[in-house]
Parts: sequence; C-alpha cells; structure tokens
Amino acid sequence: MTGIFISFEGPDGAGKTTALNNLLPLLKSKTDQEIVLSREPGGSEIAEKIREIILTIHDEQMDARTEALLYAASRRQHLVDVILPAIEQNKIMLSDRFVDSSIAYQGAGRMIGTKEVAEINDFAIDGQLPDLTIYFDISPEIGLSRIKKDHQEQMDRLEQEKLPFHERVHEAYLELLKNNPERIKKIDATQSLDKVVADTLKVITDRFPSEFNLGG
Amino acid sequence: MTGIFISFEGPDGAGKTTALNNLLPLLKSKTDQEIVLSREPGGSEIAEKIREIILTIHDEQMDARTEALLYAASRRQHLVDVILPAIEQNKIMLSDRFVDSSIAYQGAGRMIGTKEVAEINDFAIDGQLPDLTIYFDISPEIGLSRIKKDHQEQMDRLEQEKLPFHERVHEAYLELLKNNPERIKKIDATQSLDKVVADTLKVITDRFPSEFNLGG
Repeated sequence: MTGIFISFEGPDGAGKTTALNNLLPLLKSKTDQEIVLSREPGGSEIAEKIREIILTIHDEQMDARTEALLYAASRRQHLVDVILPAIEQNKIMLSDRFVDSSIAYQGAGRMIGTKEVAEINDFAIDGQLPDLTIYFDISPEIGLSRIKKDHQEQMDRLEQEKLPFHERVHEAYLELLKNNPERIKKIDATQSLDKVVADTLKVITDRFPSEFNLGG
Repeated sequence: MTGIFISFEGPDGAGKTTALNNLLPLLKSKTDQEIVLSREPGGSEIAEKIREIILTIHDEQMDARTEALLYAASRRQHLVDVILPAIEQNKIMLSDRFVDSSIAYQGAGRMIGTKEVAEINDFAIDGQLPDLTIYFDISPEIGLSRIKKDHQEQMDRLEQEKLPFHERVHEAYLELLKNNPERIKKIDATQSLDKVVADTLKVITDRFPSEFNLGG
C-alpha cells in the first residue's frame, strides 16, 4: 500500500467532472485507503487566490504567457499543499486536471507552443508527474455541443473560445497520449456516463491491484 | 530617436529607489523624449494583483517555485502593458528591477537554481532584455545595516531573510555582471548619493548620446 497520484484530463464537454463524481463512491468501495479529490487550478489557499486572478480577468487584458505562468504557479502550490502530502500519507490523490491541461490549452490552444509550456511546467512540478492519467476523449464538435446544451449561461472564458482553439487542444491531447502511452490511458467519452465510469474504474483497478482489492 | 529600456538592479539597501528618484529630473533635463518610470513586481492592473499575492502571503506558506512563477507572471504582464508600449512609442522606459532580480533572489537567494529561474524568465520576456542595466553594487553587510537604520519597522519578507541569503543574492549579481559585460554596468553604491546619481547619469548619457543630447 503506497500513495497514488491520478490525474483526469480532457477537452471541455468530455464530462470529466461528472464522471469523477460518479466514480468516487465506486473507488471508495474498493479500497481502505483514503481518497482525496481536488481540482486545478486551485485546491489550496494560495492556489485559489491565483485561480481567482486567472478566471476573473477579461481575456483581452491578460497576456497568454502571463496566464500560462499563473497556471503553473497555482499548480506548484496545489502540488506542495495538497498532492505531495496526500501521496506521503499513502492516500489516493485524484486531481481534476494537471500539467497536460496547460500543455493542451495554453501551449496548443493559445499557440504559445507545447514545448515552451511544458518547460515552465517542468519547473513547477519538479519531476512529480501523475502515476496514471485518465484522458476522456471527445471531438471538439461533440464536446462543444454538449456544453451549449448543459449550461449556456455559465461558459467560462476558456469554453468561450472558438472551435479552432478546441481543435488545437484536442490535437495536443492526442499527441500527449501518443508520447506517453504508459502514463496516459484514453477513455471514449462519447459513451454513456455509466460506461465511461465503468471503463475508468477498470483502468484504475487493473493498474493498481494491490490498492483496490476489496470486493463489490 | 528610438525607444530605450533601462533596468535598475541591486541588493537590498543599495539605495536604488532613492537614486532613481534623484536621477529622474536630471535625465528629464537632458532629453525631449518622455521618460516612464515603473517598478517590479507590478506596474499594471493585473501585475499589481499578482504583486499583492506575492507580498501578503507569509513566507512559510508560499513555496519558492510558486513565488518565482508569480514574479515571472507579473513581469510578463508588466512587459506587455507598460514596457513594450513605451518602447514602441519612442519613450525612455526605466524599470526598478527586471529579470536579473529573479535570477539573483529566487534563483540564488532561495536556491532554486539560477539556470532554472532564468529559463522561466526567458519564457516570460520572450527575448525582450533591457538595452542597459544599471547594477548598484553593495556588500550584504553594508546593505543590511543601511536597511536597519532606515526603516526597521517596514522590512518586507525578502529583506527579513538572513545574511547568507543576501550573500547568495550578491554573488549572483556579480556573476550576472561578469556574464553580461555589455548589458550590465556596475555603479559603486557605497559612495554618496550625489556621486551614485552622477555616475549613473554619466553611464546612461554616454551609452545613448543621441537620446540625451540637451545641455544642462
């Protein structure tokens, strides 16, 4: 029994957060270890303050590189305050988004460059990658149409970007998947919620059999 | 006549800000170009919000890498909002601190590594180094004793660090000076204020004779 760090990634509209909420009780039923669920950006006092700046400033005022550096700063503090202590205490740490989001959204989406954004994130995480990353795959067309149906009034500024932005994000995720076949596992997010959750559960329990060994 | 970007650097207690305030009217008397004076971190709405987080959070709560990323984010936005527009409009831009401060304070002082901190700052400035950097040199011992005399009640958290921290900062500045002999010029900050200001004025007007060509 050791600490585990799993991140969850995917384009907007992939249903990542809903799937995570449904997955959580199932994971809890299969382990005696404490499970911690957190999200990015944020998850600690300082990280939340940084998140506030990122999400409340209008798009046209904030430079893309400033935004990428703020996400990296927030990630660093989230890692130090939440993720590393959880791993050290043998907990199972689930993070809704981590470095891959920045590489896809800021690097590719905002066209700063995936290599450049990966570098400042290497500085932020200092070697601490997730043990496993679940990538919820969905095409930008389907993802965006889901968002529009679900909460048209609540789209945040990343979601408001146009289709080409989301196409670049999707491409970058596929590239990350290709380059990290051991760490990142793809789930088909166009399936029903039940099937998405069941597939995710299977990937996690297959990968960590000694941590998720209870029946049910 | 073109835009010029000059940064001012130095350890705490070097008298940098006082010297700058005394230098400003003298520079103005020698040029027709508009002079803009700004400081780091901050100098624009977003950058000031980031500065607030950096300066109000207690030391023990904020990770050194988070701090370095926040300084880089603040610097980026300061560059985009203040420095680049000034240069484009043929103004003379004076910045109280720029990248060298992060390399010295976060890289060496906080022992993250000067190379690592230089890299995230390369991301932030994207090639835009100052045309000239004035480095006010003072030993940590003299610098710190000056601070204690001046405003013992107002020392911020960088100034509160112990002597070894300030020794590392000083060493890093000397290393930057050695590696950038064209860009960075040293002023002996142990001299009288009048002499420091006169030396600085001479370095600047000698370097940019066509911009500072008025008598007086």
